[in-house]
Amino acid sequence: MNPSGKQLHLNVFVSGTGHHEASWRHPQASPERNVDVRYFQNIAQIAERGKLDSLFLADSYVVDADVRYRNVTRLEPLTLLSALSVATERIGLIATAATTYNDPFHIARKFASLDHISGGRAGWNIVTAGTEATSFNFGRDEHLNHALRYKQAEEFVEVVTRLWDSWDEDALVIDKEAGLFADGGKVREIHFKGDHYAVRGPLNLNRPPQGYPVLVQAGSSESGKELAAKTAEVIFTAVQTLAEAQQFYSDVKSRLAKYGRTHDQLTILPGLSPIIGDTEAEAKELEQSLQQLTIPAYGLARLSRLLGTDMFNYDLDGPVPIGDLPGIDAINGRKARYQLLVDLAVRENLTIRQLILRTAGARGHLTFTGTPLQVADLIENWFKNGGSDGFNVMPPLLPLGLEAFVDKVVPELQNRGLFRTDYEGTTLRDHLGLTKPVNKFSRSGVVK
Amino acid sequence: MNPSGKQLHLNVFVSGTGHHEASWRHPQASPERNVDVRYFQNIAQIAERGKLDSLFLADSYVVDADVRYRNVTRLEPLTLLSALSVATERIGLIATAATTYNDPFHIARKFASLDHISGGRAGWNIVTAGTEATSFNFGRDEHLNHALRYKQAEEFVEVVTRLWDSWDEDALVIDKEAGLFADGGKVREIHFKGDHYAVRGPLNLNRPPQGYPVLVQAGSSESGKELAAKTAEVIFTAVQTLAEAQQFYSDVKSRLAKYGRTHDQLTILPGLSPIIGDTEAEAKELEQSLQQLTIPAYGLARLSRLLGTDMFNYDLDGPVPIGDLPGIDAINGRKARYQLLVDLAVRENLTIRQLILRTAGARGHLTFTGTPLQVADLIENWFKNGGSDGFNVMPPLLPLGLEAFVDKVVPELQNRGLFRTDYEGTTLRDHLGLTKPVNKFSRSGVVK
Repeated sequence: MNPSGKQLHLNVFVSGTGHHEASWRHPQASPERNVDVRYFQNIAQIAERGKLDSLFLADSYVVDADVRYRNVTRLEPLTLLSALSVATERIGLIATAATTYNDPFHIARKFASLDHISGGRAGWNIVTAGTEATSFNFGRDEHLNHALRYKQAEEFVEVVTRLWDSWDEDALVIDKEAGLFADGGKVREIHFKGDHYAVRGPLNLNRPPQGYPVLVQAGSSESGKELAAKTAEVIFTAVQTLAEAQQFYSDVKSRLAKYGRTHDQLTILPGLSPIIGDTEAEAKELEQSLQQLTIPAYGLARLSRLLGTDMFNYDLDGPVPIGDLPGIDAINGRKARYQLLVDLAVRENLTIRQLILRTAGARGHLTFTGTPLQVADLIENWFKNGGSDGFNVMPPLLPLGLEAFVDKVVPELQNRGLFRTDYEGTTLRDHLGLTKPVNKFSRSGVVK
Repeated sequence: MNPSGKQLHLNVFVSGTGHHEASWRHPQASPERNVDVRYFQNIAQIAERGKLDSLFLADSYVVDADVRYRNVTRLEPLTLLSALSVATERIGLIATAATTYNDPFHIARKFASLDHISGGRAGWNIVTAGTEATSFNFGRDEHLNHALRYKQAEEFVEVVTRLWDSWDEDALVIDKEAGLFADGGKVREIHFKGDHYAVRGPLNLNRPPQGYPVLVQAGSSESGKELAAKTAEVIFTAVQTLAEAQQFYSDVKSRLAKYGRTHDQLTILPGLSPIIGDTEAEAKELEQSLQQLTIPAYGLARLSRLLGTDMFNYDLDGPVPIGDLPGIDAINGRKARYQLLVDLAVRENLTIRQLILRTAGARGHLTFTGTPLQVADLIENWFKNGGSDGFNVMPPLLPLGLEAFVDKVVPELQNRGLFRTDYEGTTLRDHLGLTKPVNKFSRSGVVK
């Protein structure tokens, strides 16, 4: 079935009641448990039962939708992941933290702490904070420019990794008799001074079990792809077709060489929101039940933000007004997502209402409605044809959609020899086949 | 025994292997578990067995001692408390977070998240970051001035509480049928613009179960006492004698009236590090075993930092050079602690070595060596004579010192009718007899 033996990687992207924007209204959803730690512990345990590589929590520093129409409340993800880590044993735990509006010292120690608490299962999804409104919660009048955010992000990651390296792997001596806790020569100030950050160090926490928590990246703009090629070990992306996926996959992988990196050092996971039914009819029925619950005012506001245009001024059943949109250069938020929506509207010749419904399931990520076998076919097809190294699974409805995936799709992938039947290692790096980064300082005595 | 019926409040201050600076070298210590979540879960469960009000984790953003001589590694406390919250059911969970070098939005949501995750058991110890070296980890060349830090802190707390109030208690509607998640009129932007912070809000998380997590304060300088009188609900302090405790107690309580607050709205807990033995001889033996393990170079560095003077230039067995010290006005770090050490050296006419040993147990907090009965006597004496509302218990050695306190001192206090035999409520506010703060916005429609 799978003579190459290459294995899929699967992450579950967990989001409140699920990724479909109307999921909270579904009879089987529990929006009243939107910030309930036991609810999320249960989800994490289901994902671990499915032997998934990791669980991912996104984040934002702003109320990012109309509170009337969506379950927008959200626990701070690092705090939540810590509680999930002690309810699980193997699954990786990834959280978003933005480089804009944060300090490298805080981010370095939060992820190092999670890595210690979880025994080496932490991952950091590096974003630059995609929405303009975020700036207003941090004392600024306007959002930092897109290119500047990425310059900052690159430097931010450099500071954070140096802080993780500020303690050598073997710095702890813990000799009670001699009164020596750590070897002072193996703990060092990093004296970082760049264009954006100045940090002396060392970190007040010894090196994380994984060396570095796994570095994840989710921006697909030109700057995002370049940052990913330089620093990321996993990349989440949104694409709609296998052709797009192949194009993105080869584009990003081909950028690795100039940073001295090999293809297996970066795992590419497109988003996939599978609406699963035991029969095609059942799957369609679930899809319909969710689509019928969408709220047009919510969808219009979402499109307005992403397209930089007030969509309330247009006829809901008229065409998407492509000519009136500002163009990608004028977008300072999520550039790649803007382009994806424009391309989708043009390719499928959609009305505004159709574009809303087309993206209600996963905000521009691929949605697919079908049986477990059909979902497994799609995954295998993309995986075997250079579209991906696996998927970022985005259940439309939680926990139901995750249970269906874990109990019905995963066994099929296992039968085909495409996915592990048990964890082989204990850390997220183990699951992803990534090695522990060599310490930049101890490698040669000077920073590379 | 206790006709007034007034009850003690007890917090345990948890710190690695214990508060004695040589605790990590003790044969019964486990410094190799310094960042092990299971180690701390066990400690939290012992404290909860003793029905203590709360557990407290301090914090710092810098390696705050020589890595050779002390177990300085430290998990980020909010991340750790989340893991402790799911291993306990009732005990309050307090963490330090500094107002300097942080953003109000992040702090508001981290503590709100912990409050949701723990079911209303979170507390925030508000500090301004006491050490100069911290600034070098956050891009600054020098520490912010003491007075400015407190002005910032006051405004910071105001922003944070407004963010907690940005969602009304009953803002969540969650009407699936009508498609209404929250009442838009009950979720509001706060539009805060002050001298130091500008934050639009609202928070992206509904109001914490306690309204506000409990506000704790630990600075005892003039500015610290005023901030506490205005905003704090618990205050940790360091005093050496009952007379000092009484003076501090009446000083701070008398400041409450001008802010329209009553005496029972602020719980004063002096630090107490009890070295407990079944007999006086056993207790003395434990004390000696710890004192013998102190490292002079560590103590000299500690005194140098706190006294703003290089103590390595003086004879270890000579007198503390009071005349050479800079005076409190020149101290920009921990002013109150500076004065406490000077007073102690003068009052007891100490050599440098003696001052090191005198403060090795708890860095200036009261230490007491004796039997469980004697510890209970001291607690009762201070409590009944206007010295405190309870204690911030700082076990010299963990978990041993906490077990001795919980299993031997607590039952004695319970027998005397001074301490609860079980939790009566479920939140930290319940344990402390504090009411839930009224929402500043919904109270009158405008901010008070």
